[in-house]
Amino acid sequence: AKTIDWSPLMAEKGGYKHFMLKEIYEQPRAIADTIAGRVLEEKGEVYLEGLDLSATELAAMEKVFIIACGTSWHAALVGKFLIEKHCRVPVEVDIASEFRYRDPIVNERTLTLLISQSGETADTLAALREARGKGGKVAAICNVVDSSIARESHGVIYTHAGPEIGVASTKAFTTQLVALFLFAVHLGRVRGTLDQAQGRAMLDALVTLPRKVEAALELDGAIEQAAREYMGARDFLYLGRGNQYPIALEGALKLKEISYIHAEGYPAGEMKHGPIALIDENLPVVVVVPHNDTFEKVISNLEEVHARGGRVIAVTDHTDPGLTEKSDAVFMLPKIIDELMPVLTSIPMQLLAYHIAVLKGTDVDQPRNLAKSVTVE
Amino acid sequence: AKTIDWSPLMAEKGGYKHFMLKEIYEQPRAIADTIAGRVLEEKGEVYLEGLDLSATELAAMEKVFIIACGTSWHAALVGKFLIEKHCRVPVEVDIASEFRYRDPIVNERTLTLLISQSGETADTLAALREARGKGGKVAAICNVVDSSIARESHGVIYTHAGPEIGVASTKAFTTQLVALFLFAVHLGRVRGTLDQAQGRAMLDALVTLPRKVEAALELDGAIEQAAREYMGARDFLYLGRGNQYPIALEGALKLKEISYIHAEGYPAGEMKHGPIALIDENLPVVVVVPHNDTFEKVISNLEEVHARGGRVIAVTDHTDPGLTEKSDAVFMLPKIIDELMPVLTSIPMQLLAYHIAVLKGTDVDQPRNLAKSVTVE
Repeated sequence: AKTIDWSPLMAEKGGYKHFMLKEIYEQPRAIADTIAGRVLEEKGEVYLEGLDLSATELAAMEKVFIIACGTSWHAALVGKFLIEKHCRVPVEVDIASEFRYRDPIVNERTLTLLISQSGETADTLAALREARGKGGKVAAICNVVDSSIARESHGVIYTHAGPEIGVASTKAFTTQLVALFLFAVHLGRVRGTLDQAQGRAMLDALVTLPRKVEAALELDGAIEQAAREYMGARDFLYLGRGNQYPIALEGALKLKEISYIHAEGYPAGEMKHGPIALIDENLPVVVVVPHNDTFEKVISNLEEVHARGGRVIAVTDHTDPGLTEKSDAVFMLPKIIDELMPVLTSIPMQLLAYHIAVLKGTDVDQPRNLAKSVTVE
Repeated sequence: AKTIDWSPLMAEKGGYKHFMLKEIYEQPRAIADTIAGRVLEEKGEVYLEGLDLSATELAAMEKVFIIACGTSWHAALVGKFLIEKHCRVPVEVDIASEFRYRDPIVNERTLTLLISQSGETADTLAALREARGKGGKVAAICNVVDSSIARESHGVIYTHAGPEIGVASTKAFTTQLVALFLFAVHLGRVRGTLDQAQGRAMLDALVTLPRKVEAALELDGAIEQAAREYMGARDFLYLGRGNQYPIALEGALKLKEISYIHAEGYPAGEMKHGPIALIDENLPVVVVVPHNDTFEKVISNLEEVHARGGRVIAVTDHTDPGLTEKSDAVFMLPKIIDELMPVLTSIPMQLLAYHIAVLKGTDVDQPRNLAKSVTVE
């Protein structure tokens, strides 16, 4: 049983010690709400009520930009994989504060997707105006209904995460991943790059996601224990490849934001081009290694860390003796299609950062120097 | 006068204590050699002898990929700015170990530029084969003549940096930047996005670069002093925007590689979306802030660091009272066109990392865990 300090805010926290933990546990529900009413499983189709861009318009797009800041930018990076793979249209991801000063090549055949929980992020709003000003189509993925970014876009896909109070984004992030998945299936279907059976298979997987997230949350106790072991570390590395590289970035950002530990995410294949020099017995390395096409490659990166004395925390969905032997801790997730795996691997990232921060005694819901929505440039 | 320990290798080091320092000082010469014979200033044109792609072929390209690893990847990020701005063709930069597993959208209208000092980087070579296998044109920027990547490409632009022995790349990087600049001018001229006068203006600036690099090297003594002050720091942040963000990444990588200090580069505008939580009086923050379009924006990021007690090391080309007041150290560079400024801002990054590593007593030319060219995946 958890020991709880009661406070006036406690009721709103629904028995949880922090909003962040409450929001982590709300994810199965938030994801189910984001899916609800949008999936025509039998037809393999997706219905996005507020998108307001016709199938003809979407089919005419020759380029997609996805623009965001912070955690939403990590969702954007996952979105690139989803859309390029299933819709075969080039996707460029950029940070809002960079995109707007880049004189980006945008025209009427360009769709710019903006991602922002609050819908008020100043740089993202400015990026939207830049893209619209150049004659491009723009659509938003927002959580806050009728926010500035939602209102100024041609279309919007709302995440139905509910209010997010913790400064470190959790359920907003995973529902953004779900919204991007829905968008990719929709775009693939209207562009003809996904047929009905493929659409159906993807949606069949999607509807299982809430209960798999629930199963992932059962790692909580084991992760709390691991947090005790690693809370003293001054630095962390997070490694992933492909659509898990953004999750490595997100894991590092979560830890940075709330525990003030200097954590950095890296594409696993780049480790030997520099960061491997940092590795010694004081550096925990979180390796995100689901059983996909690059599993063996990531295992070999993990071995390089282990061979140099680094302490490996592995996040996987696959039992592998080599992996177990070379890792100090292994967090085992349920299996799901590779496109949705980033949602599941996000869960241990959130819980690890949360428990380390609690053990260090930081102000988890309101970390120093950070604001929930960054409405200044 | 420097105190020197003589060793059998000393002759080859030409009186310098380390190959890295020798190679830092060789940059004016290496850059001049990379420019020599390629610039037709009067015509505003560039002649690239080994490129082997006709003006017609280059004009037909609808997309450019630039693929690399490590330091070369940072050069690629600068290249994106150069080519998009002056040639108005979309450029996508990717890390070789990511690109090759991404099923990238490549066709005969796609030019893939590979950058590798050694020309033997395994992931980059595999990326080349992936792009060629899909029917795309490929060109390489290499330093080692007749290397695998050079041989397997349709064309090659050699950097004439001479042999680089230090594991941390210095002169290879800045000559890659010069090669990308030459390529951008060439591509702009053959595509008609740069006229003769514009080409000439850019090349006029380019020929002044070697002596401006020489002037930048005069910061050496001041940077050595600063290194004494900051060598005890456990962590560093490096911030930049636009074409200086890659230089922030490169500065952080240099420090990581040879001093084993955990340094991280960030786009300055993203700081408030997370890393700002790390800022306190123990964290030196290197801010790259030349006097360009985003100068005021970066100054405001710098002020955020200063206001939270962070120690600011500014690299600029502009005297500004606010900047001086809010910085613990300011390194002043000569002025040059913004497209070439990343070459100049690289110099203090190299010197700072070098002096901190020497003071810490690490093996500067052969840092732990790292190889000069990564010929395994």
